[in-house]
Amino acid sequence: MKIISGILLFISLCSFLLAQQSSDPQKTVAGKFVNTALREQQGYLWLQQLCAIGSRLSGSKESLQAIRWAQKVMQNYGADHVWLQPVMVPNWKRGTVEKLTISRSSIYRGKKLIIAALGGSIGTAVNGITSSVLEVKSLTEVDSLGPLVEGKIVFFNRPFDREKLNPNEAYGGAVDQRSRGAARAGKAGAVAVLVRSVTSKYDNAPHTGVTYYEKDGIRIPAAAIGQIDADFLSSALQQDPALKVTLRLSCKPAADTISYNVIGEITGSEFPQEIIVVGAHIDSWDLGCGAHDDGGGCVQAMEVLNLFKQCDIKSRRTIRCVLFMDEEQQQTGAAAYASWSDSSRQNHVAVIESDRGVLTPRGFTIDTDSLTLAKICGWQSILDLCGIDWVRKGGSGADVGKLKQARARIGYVPDSQRYFDFHHSANDILAAVHPRELELGTAAMATLVYLLSQNGL
Amino acid sequence: MKIISGILLFISLCSFLLAQQSSDPQKTVAGKFVNTALREQQGYLWLQQLCAIGSRLSGSKESLQAIRWAQKVMQNYGADHVWLQPVMVPNWKRGTVEKLTISRSSIYRGKKLIIAALGGSIGTAVNGITSSVLEVKSLTEVDSLGPLVEGKIVFFNRPFDREKLNPNEAYGGAVDQRSRGAARAGKAGAVAVLVRSVTSKYDNAPHTGVTYYEKDGIRIPAAAIGQIDADFLSSALQQDPALKVTLRLSCKPAADTISYNVIGEITGSEFPQEIIVVGAHIDSWDLGCGAHDDGGGCVQAMEVLNLFKQCDIKSRRTIRCVLFMDEEQQQTGAAAYASWSDSSRQNHVAVIESDRGVLTPRGFTIDTDSLTLAKICGWQSILDLCGIDWVRKGGSGADVGKLKQARARIGYVPDSQRYFDFHHSANDILAAVHPRELELGTAAMATLVYLLSQNGL
Repeated sequence: MKIISGILLFISLCSFLLAQQSSDPQKTVAGKFVNTALREQQGYLWLQQLCAIGSRLSGSKESLQAIRWAQKVMQNYGADHVWLQPVMVPNWKRGTVEKLTISRSSIYRGKKLIIAALGGSIGTAVNGITSSVLEVKSLTEVDSLGPLVEGKIVFFNRPFDREKLNPNEAYGGAVDQRSRGAARAGKAGAVAVLVRSVTSKYDNAPHTGVTYYEKDGIRIPAAAIGQIDADFLSSALQQDPALKVTLRLSCKPAADTISYNVIGEITGSEFPQEIIVVGAHIDSWDLGCGAHDDGGGCVQAMEVLNLFKQCDIKSRRTIRCVLFMDEEQQQTGAAAYASWSDSSRQNHVAVIESDRGVLTPRGFTIDTDSLTLAKICGWQSILDLCGIDWVRKGGSGADVGKLKQARARIGYVPDSQRYFDFHHSANDILAAVHPRELELGTAAMATLVYLLSQNGL
Repeated sequence: MKIISGILLFISLCSFLLAQQSSDPQKTVAGKFVNTALREQQGYLWLQQLCAIGSRLSGSKESLQAIRWAQKVMQNYGADHVWLQPVMVPNWKRGTVEKLTISRSSIYRGKKLIIAALGGSIGTAVNGITSSVLEVKSLTEVDSLGPLVEGKIVFFNRPFDREKLNPNEAYGGAVDQRSRGAARAGKAGAVAVLVRSVTSKYDNAPHTGVTYYEKDGIRIPAAAIGQIDADFLSSALQQDPALKVTLRLSCKPAADTISYNVIGEITGSEFPQEIIVVGAHIDSWDLGCGAHDDGGGCVQAMEVLNLFKQCDIKSRRTIRCVLFMDEEQQQTGAAAYASWSDSSRQNHVAVIESDRGVLTPRGFTIDTDSLTLAKICGWQSILDLCGIDWVRKGGSGADVGKLKQARARIGYVPDSQRYFDFHHSANDILAAVHPRELELGTAAMATLVYLLSQNGL
């Protein structure tokens, strides 16, 4: 018995020492990432440069400048391979005319309202479309109104539900008006649509975003209207239901054009064929400069690799930064990467996306099986050191979510209470990004990448 | 055996049903608080009013206006008792002159630097103090420099350590220069001190805060200097170590004056003698309007009671909102409340403080025994509904922390990454507060108060 006890004691001691050895160095690395990111704020400095280039609508000159810039940054910090992956992308142009005027009303004639065309929308004739306005709260209301819709400008005015704890839910509860409203109202005979901006902030900034037409369906012009002007229009319609508005938009889709995903990687020292992707999208809407959506995610992804370099941390597996083009409209960049990944049999251990803004870190959501989830949850005490409160089952993102063969698809989740104040609007500028919050997100992702790289899945 | 199995099954079923009954209504209440707070944003509307009154330095006219305003708000929403608790408070006045000029230097003569007197500081003579500057990094460096300190203006220039994950730690690591620097340097023969602002934001806003002299110790004038000008002065001293500056401050302490804690309560329906306090401090520094510190905490505490009224939720125990005067200087308000509490044997079940800004909610820290802590941690699944990620052992706050007979002293912990950007400076204004973040904090505290009120401790 004494011998057995002795053996057990020895085994316990070894396990304890091994546990110490395996956990402490990982915590040391996490601490280095946090300290370095917060001290150097390299990602924030890059974001200043990226925002100075401007917004990055897919197909735009600025989007190509941003691609070259990102390629150069990764080359300069010594990524082992940096390359561009060609992809054909939509090439929608906003144009210069976006006007909505109350053109017939005894009370409000001449009043101008602030709008922005929805992405993908066709324009109007030069003289615009003049019609009366039918206010509705949902797509199904359009269906139910039948012939009343004919010839009208349909005004979707169901608000973002600010009572909800989770702004993503509130967004999800309203965004169908923007993404499907034009198709649905066009089918019912409407001549154009206006959509109340899907946002948590009560101001007058229009929030754009893609609207999808049905293939071979009727296409009608579509514009977002700021919350203040949406309420104004709604109240004006109550007083003067017969008022007419004139909508003028010069936006138009052009032929698809060539663009690129930007890819950089550090080759793994032991398992170079096993790949961990950290990704974001480099295109943006054009009203602000896409600082949160998703310039911040891009500089975080780029900085993850740089932190390994700066902190002189070797990665056992390959770490790959992928900046996807065209997340906002057709996700052609993600499709191109996924297709190449399948054909060249890329072995993705895990893929992480940062595309929910760059506010203060909260957690990671993981799309994987329960055993793998449990393994990642087991790293909580290390992720704690980066301000990560939790790891949960959940979705990843529009881009990396396409990589179905990856063992785990992971979404980085920052706090979201402020996010829809900026999202897709002129509010999404550098001043809305806090350097510490951005950098902690980077450190959290770098730490998770390190744990994945060290331990595999 | 069958009978025993049957009984066991029956007991299990009863427990299950009881658990359902006891947990679901509590979740319903949490949901009501969240929805109502986010919809009505009453606290944010009150904060607009409070900030319009202005800053609330203890002893100031505005602080008395704020007291009357808060009293009226709580009377108007129908608190069962609202009263003012008199307390003698310090009455320091900033005055109108705060000037620091480089008055002798071949390179920098005439350059003006941005400063703000530290709270409690004495002023200078009208002509100011002119002297050379001795830059140091710590109190102990002052001690070690001996006779070199004599006649100098000591410039404490140890920065806020931005590498740290937790900004509170970085603050704690630098704030001794502000709170004790004048006393320590005065003792060593210095004629005045300048202190690098203790802040996470790299701008030029001076951040004030109290400086403590020793009783019967030497008192010398003390001012905060913005980070940009602190770096400028440091670099100027390297180039011209003999430069002299002239410091002029017209601040001065006046005789202590009468002020008040503002107290409002809703009487408990079953245990009126058992009290749950939710508190904050109504005084503020005078450079901004104390929107985060601690106007936001005040409107949260006031709104907690109002949420019970609005949602028509009965409280089994008494809920008391206490707005403490003079947290920033001497905590005389907290001392007055604690003393009254002891003498009148107030039975405090739990006391909660909101004084860490009103950014997005993260958790609660609890100062109590481990059994009570475990009970509160058991409510996590309900607090989840308000955006609370965790409940942990930890401190409460400068005011409620004095109530040692309370079963639990609790600190509300919002995210802190942005907090020291504003703290004690002209940056602490309404625009720095996000309505959703403020309101979620209120809902979280109201929910915790409800759980304490329902279940006791």
